[in-house]
Amino acid sequence: MQTKDKILEAALALYNSNGVNNITTRHIAASINISAGNLHYHFKHTDDIIQALYDRLSGEFDGIISRIQQANIENLESLSAFAYESFELVYKYRFIFLGFVDIGARIPSIKAAYQQLMRKRKREFKGVFRLLVSNGTFRDDIPDTVWTALVTQIFIVADFWLSNNELTLQLEGKKAINHYTKVFEAMFFPYMR
Amino acid sequence: MQTKDKILEAALALYNSNGVNNITTRHIAASINISAGNLHYHFKHTDDIIQALYDRLSGEFDGIISRIQQANIENLESLSAFAYESFELVYKYRFIFLGFVDIGARIPSIKAAYQQLMRKRKREFKGVFRLLVSNGTFRDDIPDTVWTALVTQIFIVADFWLSNNELTLQLEGKKAINHYTKVFEAMFFPYMR
Repeated sequence: MQTKDKILEAALALYNSNGVNNITTRHIAASINISAGNLHYHFKHTDDIIQALYDRLSGEFDGIISRIQQANIENLESLSAFAYESFELVYKYRFIFLGFVDIGARIPSIKAAYQQLMRKRKREFKGVFRLLVSNGTFRDDIPDTVWTALVTQIFIVADFWLSNNELTLQLEGKKAINHYTKVFEAMFFPYMR
Repeated sequence: MQTKDKILEAALALYNSNGVNNITTRHIAASINISAGNLHYHFKHTDDIIQALYDRLSGEFDGIISRIQQANIENLESLSAFAYESFELVYKYRFIFLGFVDIGARIPSIKAAYQQLMRKRKREFKGVFRLLVSNGTFRDDIPDTVWTALVTQIFIVADFWLSNNELTLQLEGKKAINHYTKVFEAMFFPYMR
């Protein structure tokens, strides 16, 4: 593995277990036995590491979306598979979602990328809803404003289920992913035909 | 107004505008022209101020709930009125919701109080749903697991719409409350008969 990848993997593990504010580049360098100078050769600032991890998260999400677009979300099973994969990714990059507001305020390029992504995802989700209405999976008597609101609800639940988990059940790993995937899937139940 | 109340009002305003981590007890004392010693007579630590503000939030929520229980939530209008009042309260105490995970980790008594409140609210919400099913407002063909999941969805959206707003639209005041109250109300649309 290249040093750059090693740094990012080590940073992800340390941020996830200790929180972004308790980990310095020194901790990261020490955990993979490289010098602070070597780390700084690859990443000038902590924010560059966070940005690189956000870009990876974003790229992995794109991978899920494109695989699903090729497979076509045409029933609830494929929607559920998408939900589970997405929630695994949220858990993998959990330090981002647990500190999203702070990270967005601190690194404006992440906030800008998130906003752009949301606009793209909004179109994609509404396309999926239209398909599921037209093939009879979803009801055809739901106003457009309700579908639009559902997209925002989806984003809030997908981005912040992990924060709810921290405040309440504190489930870990697959238990957390399974529980909240079910909570998420239930959002679609009343839309089904 | 008593000094204690003045301190809490000043703290709320400063935390909301600058974030809890950028405000010290000195800033709060200075903003109402009292000495740091006088402030510390009322609150030993910053965490005591945050706890007192959380208790106020919690008490104001109880007020909304009990007014609504007296009025009976028996249609979608009363549910919407509840949503709007709740979202006003979230906005009033926005520093708590924007840093909820951190505050919960830092002040265990707040996390414990939140968990207890959630259990109580879960019962209350499910009672409201049962009433709305029995009076014909809500559908009677929704499984209990879906109602239970809806309660968790409600908590996630109610607690974190403000975080979504920070990352995306950044609406302020009534504009934010109005927009997200509508997003929230739309959650109930497909459950209606």
